[in-house]
Amino acid sequence: MVVKVYGPACASAHRVMVCLVEKEVEFETIPVNILTGEHKNPEFLKLQPFGSLPVIQDGDYTLFESRAILRYYAEKYKSQGTDLLGKTMEDQGLVQQWLEVEAHNFQPPLYNLLRQIMLSSHCGITRDEQVIKESEEKLGKVLDVYEDRLSESRYLAGDFFSLADLAHLPLTEYMVGPVGKAYMIKERKHVSAWWDEISSRPSWKKVLEMISK
Amino acid sequence: MVVKVYGPACASAHRVMVCLVEKEVEFETIPVNILTGEHKNPEFLKLQPFGSLPVIQDGDYTLFESRAILRYYAEKYKSQGTDLLGKTMEDQGLVQQWLEVEAHNFQPPLYNLLRQIMLSSHCGITRDEQVIKESEEKLGKVLDVYEDRLSESRYLAGDFFSLADLAHLPLTEYMVGPVGKAYMIKERKHVSAWWDEISSRPSWKKVLEMISK
Repeated sequence: MVVKVYGPACASAHRVMVCLVEKEVEFETIPVNILTGEHKNPEFLKLQPFGSLPVIQDGDYTLFESRAILRYYAEKYKSQGTDLLGKTMEDQGLVQQWLEVEAHNFQPPLYNLLRQIMLSSHCGITRDEQVIKESEEKLGKVLDVYEDRLSESRYLAGDFFSLADLAHLPLTEYMVGPVGKAYMIKERKHVSAWWDEISSRPSWKKVLEMISK
Repeated sequence: MVVKVYGPACASAHRVMVCLVEKEVEFETIPVNILTGEHKNPEFLKLQPFGSLPVIQDGDYTLFESRAILRYYAEKYKSQGTDLLGKTMEDQGLVQQWLEVEAHNFQPPLYNLLRQIMLSSHCGITRDEQVIKESEEKLGKVLDVYEDRLSESRYLAGDFFSLADLAHLPLTEYMVGPVGKAYMIKERKHVSAWWDEISSRPSWKKVLEMISK
């Protein structure tokens, strides 16, 4: 039985999907319509009590929170597909560290930009130029740290591609695309090389193809 | 050489400290004065480029982000002290899931309350009753999910104490203490029993004693 991924229209689900492709785990996607509030229906809340996406079902095992799902599959299939965790305990610690940085430093300002620029009509908010300016400044400072880090190592956690890099794919794809902030990547030499490398992986191209259908 | 924990005055560092006590890892604490901006000094930024706390140094290995540090020590010393990860791969997945819930659902509204009620003078913000009301409502909804979950299992990830429970200790201690929201725990039978149990662990009592000095 293949893994079911609920919510393929959301960025966090793309994070799970690219991980499953890297780990060579078969999956199918189950649409959940956020616009009609399907994620708040009693049936869905049995799977995810907070009404958030994505959720996976693997046989009778259910798991939510995208970064928890990444860790589960990276660990469960450690020797299948791409190793996304690092070889030594210390490398693995650094993968966890940069995965936390993605969640707590990188995502919040970028999500604000995305919400203001791409989703303001859906979210029922009025576009606020001050929030856009502040979020862009915050994101710029985070990317300055990335630039330093990536001048020392090819990927965030070291010289190996890992969950830490993979977790950045979905939102950065929006950032360089519809959010219109590609210049923030391009003006930073090492960040730019890193982005070119991770976004051209066959796994990510496959996910982009899947979600464009 | 014992582990160095920078920033013992902040809640996230307490999370690391209680983990090290559970894992029977010796450590010493290194004060970092946030009020004088020591965490933004060039020397400190070499350890933690975002200027956040805590950071650990273990010999020549440096790691930041409290939940990454928890995972590192829980994995490195899996068979020493309390097992904080769960026995099966599926249990470990649930530990990761609830650890993410703590970070993304539980902490944000509680941190807002803490900031408004305890830290408004330090943070240079004016206390906003509307933010307090909304944060309390959000936190209440999260605790309702916890109440359901804890009616089915003794701890968040199952019938074993794990990183997922441990990560809640520092901010919940503030919540029932200086933030003045103990009633939100007490009025939920299973959350209340869970809190009584995890907060009376010798490890947490030891950390409370260390930070009260």
